[in-house]
Amino acid sequence: MVTHITEEIPRSVWYGWGDPARARPMGRASLKLLRDELELSSLEPTQPPVDLSEVRLGPVRLEEDVLAELRAICGSGHVSTEAQDRIEHAGGKSTPDLLRRRAGDALDAPDAVVFPATSEEVRRLLELCGRRRLAVVSFGGGTSVVGGVEPLRGRFDGVITVDLRRMDRLLSIDPVSHTATFEAGIRGPAIEAALSVHGFTLGHLPQSHQQATLGGYIATRSAGQASTGYGRADDLVKSVYVETPAGPFDVGTEAPGTAAGPKLLDVLVGSEGILGVITTATVKITPAPRHKAYGAWSFPSFEAGVEALRQLRHEGVRGDMPHVCRLSDSDETATTFKLGGRKTELLGRYLAFRGQKGPALALFVWEGDARETRARKRRSARILRKAGGLVLGPLPGQSWEHGRFSGPYMRDELLTRGVYVETLETAASWTKIGATHASVRQAILQALQENGGGAYVQAHVSHVYSDGASLYFTFLAGREEDGLAQNARVKEAASRAIVAAGATITHHHAVGTDHAPYVTAEIGDLGVRVLRGIKDVLDPQGIMNPGKLIPATAPAATRPPG
Amino acid sequence: MVTHITEEIPRSVWYGWGDPARARPMGRASLKLLRDELELSSLEPTQPPVDLSEVRLGPVRLEEDVLAELRAICGSGHVSTEAQDRIEHAGGKSTPDLLRRRAGDALDAPDAVVFPATSEEVRRLLELCGRRRLAVVSFGGGTSVVGGVEPLRGRFDGVITVDLRRMDRLLSIDPVSHTATFEAGIRGPAIEAALSVHGFTLGHLPQSHQQATLGGYIATRSAGQASTGYGRADDLVKSVYVETPAGPFDVGTEAPGTAAGPKLLDVLVGSEGILGVITTATVKITPAPRHKAYGAWSFPSFEAGVEALRQLRHEGVRGDMPHVCRLSDSDETATTFKLGGRKTELLGRYLAFRGQKGPALALFVWEGDARETRARKRRSARILRKAGGLVLGPLPGQSWEHGRFSGPYMRDELLTRGVYVETLETAASWTKIGATHASVRQAILQALQENGGGAYVQAHVSHVYSDGASLYFTFLAGREEDGLAQNARVKEAASRAIVAAGATITHHHAVGTDHAPYVTAEIGDLGVRVLRGIKDVLDPQGIMNPGKLIPATAPAATRPPG
Repeated sequence: MVTHITEEIPRSVWYGWGDPARARPMGRASLKLLRDELELSSLEPTQPPVDLSEVRLGPVRLEEDVLAELRAICGSGHVSTEAQDRIEHAGGKSTPDLLRRRAGDALDAPDAVVFPATSEEVRRLLELCGRRRLAVVSFGGGTSVVGGVEPLRGRFDGVITVDLRRMDRLLSIDPVSHTATFEAGIRGPAIEAALSVHGFTLGHLPQSHQQATLGGYIATRSAGQASTGYGRADDLVKSVYVETPAGPFDVGTEAPGTAAGPKLLDVLVGSEGILGVITTATVKITPAPRHKAYGAWSFPSFEAGVEALRQLRHEGVRGDMPHVCRLSDSDETATTFKLGGRKTELLGRYLAFRGQKGPALALFVWEGDARETRARKRRSARILRKAGGLVLGPLPGQSWEHGRFSGPYMRDELLTRGVYVETLETAASWTKIGATHASVRQAILQALQENGGGAYVQAHVSHVYSDGASLYFTFLAGREEDGLAQNARVKEAASRAIVAAGATITHHHAVGTDHAPYVTAEIGDLGVRVLRGIKDVLDPQGIMNPGKLIPATAPAATRPPG
Repeated sequence: MVTHITEEIPRSVWYGWGDPARARPMGRASLKLLRDELELSSLEPTQPPVDLSEVRLGPVRLEEDVLAELRAICGSGHVSTEAQDRIEHAGGKSTPDLLRRRAGDALDAPDAVVFPATSEEVRRLLELCGRRRLAVVSFGGGTSVVGGVEPLRGRFDGVITVDLRRMDRLLSIDPVSHTATFEAGIRGPAIEAALSVHGFTLGHLPQSHQQATLGGYIATRSAGQASTGYGRADDLVKSVYVETPAGPFDVGTEAPGTAAGPKLLDVLVGSEGILGVITTATVKITPAPRHKAYGAWSFPSFEAGVEALRQLRHEGVRGDMPHVCRLSDSDETATTFKLGGRKTELLGRYLAFRGQKGPALALFVWEGDARETRARKRRSARILRKAGGLVLGPLPGQSWEHGRFSGPYMRDELLTRGVYVETLETAASWTKIGATHASVRQAILQALQENGGGAYVQAHVSHVYSDGASLYFTFLAGREEDGLAQNARVKEAASRAIVAAGATITHHHAVGTDHAPYVTAEIGDLGVRVLRGIKDVLDPQGIMNPGKLIPATAPAATRPPG
């Protein structure tokens, strides 16, 4: 498995994640543990994806003169109606996306995929699509797990997916002001490779890093694994250039800290392609760290671990917070220990001996200068120890980092072995995070077990804020015959529990189609009307990414008062 | 002069700042220096404000039944058409505001001032004003220096100013998640007093702190003197409850770090009353610091000082940045030294001996635990020394802090003495801040001297960001006969220079009426249309604070390409 953040790997295979040749097959211990947990009789790989040639596609519903116009804009080599291109752009990478495609269903694929090379070409594409009543889906790495790049036609005559992969350059860098301007289609590793030449990093490392693009980070208000240190995508972005159906929109300022009215940049950040196509972006950059310090602590319980993270954030010295800050709940910790072989098994016994029966493992990475970083770790260690943590050394953190991008590969294998697996995330205030963890976990477990059989849920905190933290759930069960119905049932139960807990429907996966029914609970009817008002200005015909973000109907759930 | 941040002082007198009894008269040395710099024959206090009884007011253009309805909503004691109330709400505290009022002109005063006590009352007020075609101005501390609370009628039959002073309570505090919810009309010192009981601070200390309100901070995207440490108002606010003509709008989430679409909170933050009245707000709070460390350094030039601040921000250890970070240019430094008496005069001579002919003085305050704070100062000192700084000890910082809120008092005396004085601010990237300082300074100086006579301009950096810093200009000249024309000429020259420099038209004073012509240069035509689109949803009749923020006509200046 690759861990180096600048290594470029091939774009994802159509039925799953990344380059299948790079997947590390699950070991026997993992498979045995899984079979036991999920009470499955077999984990044989009996459900591989169909062959590409068997995938069902609808006809291309575009007039020949439209195709000719598309070719005139992008060049004939950059407009495709080929089956493989259409299938590769038929959706994102959520489990239901993969279930559909693996079963040979790409009926929703776009009519054509275009690969513009300039902002000007994107502008002309939008003009054409408006004139010919075609929906437009903006496509970066295609890693959405919430239906964000689903090529929905809406009320239009066809749908074109605009893939930005050719717009992948670093345009300029300002080493004095610590900013850089990129084309939006550049992928995570290429961003880091381009910046590292100049001694800088963006520090944005979501699990999708190897595939996802800068434009996607910004359009989804993404958070990465080191965002506790570097800040979220919304903290990093300074300005964006967006092609909208109403014309090009240059949003944000070169100057820092303006008070010139509402921050319109935050209308475009998180807009998920419904207002326009982000074609370039200027972001804040940081000198690449010269040193990393790793640390791991074990806490008597998840609740104790959460309280320790809170104290670290609130009582710690300014700036001592680790860049990566991750706390597994007892289930996730137990699984980590079970899969770590003889060594971690002994560790589990040691912790039990020290009174930690259901320990929660916390991993940290501090980045910076060697001396400074070690000092920050040392000061943090005092707080963590006082909060009940037992120090476990640097290895668990290093081991996590080694496999930091490997999760999605494992899902492909699990699906082949007939296992249903999915993830979802939320965030809650410190006051509510314990109750949110308990109720969402319970809702998922109950929904998974509804039709009998075993189920497994684990969670971790991955981002720490002054006012709360995120929660990331991973859950597995044997796949039911109707995997899509199984998924919808679990997802709805979890979403309702999240809304009821006063948490957010999404911490970094964004809204897409899947969370749209819960947006009203988050921003209110008036908020939805404001979003529609903004869209009416920038996309009066509504061609941009229809069906995403803005809820179509009545709210699916409402937040309780208080 | 008062420096304690929780001491409540009376609301500002109608013709000037604060409680005139608390003003410290200018000393003889200051007066002599000023007379020399401005080449004035006299500084006698020959131009006092007129007597309150001489102020000219227009008639109250409200039907009696409207007044009866207002009284039915707020209670008869909380609806005023008295001359003094109307005059006190006739505008903000910019120099042209004061020139007009001191000369007896309050013809623009609102028809009535109402003092609601609840969000529900505000809601009913907006309903009434929409029904009866009345403009609504939301009024906190009334400290706007950009025309933000000017009671413009627009196309409406009358104008009502809604003063939120009765809505001044701390509603709840969450010491676990470090958040607090206040009514929006609470003033700065009352915020700090309420939080200090619980061991917390907001840390938001603009020069207007003693008068300004939380709602005003948020509506103007304010920055305070310690915002380099605590963050700007936009960083501190978590959620707002806004009464809009379209209904109550609860924006923002209790959960941190959501990715649920665009951050609509940032549409309300900085909206300057044009979308609704902010009635409550939840903000992030910080444990009150137990210690402050003060430091001052002198640099050979302003440019060298700016570079030192940049290095401190970029090369310094994470979290070592001082909370207060202020660098005076050579003019401001020279004046500080001249006014400091024998001691600072000697200091100036010492610096010249050490090779600093036009020194730039930098002041810093670090806040936190005693040991930690001292360590941060020590590490910062190494960087500042390496960047050419000579250490001056803690006294200049303490002296600055003692007079931190006194600037506006001095202006009242200067106006009485026939001096024109005003301030304005901007921010620029590190790459452009030097050129911005030079060109804006030159533009102000040239405009001040256009009709002959002496003039004086000084500037300082007051906020440091990763990508740049702010610049705050103070300038004086003898007052011309038409002081308003003089002011308009200078302000326009400065604004054009700011736009041409690629800086922002406002770093923390906001837009109001004065900067509205320059907003298009900042956000583009499409940005203006987006603002209008949002306003159409929340305030379809356009009754909220007409004439502010959104430019009425063609742009006054355009930004050069690049």
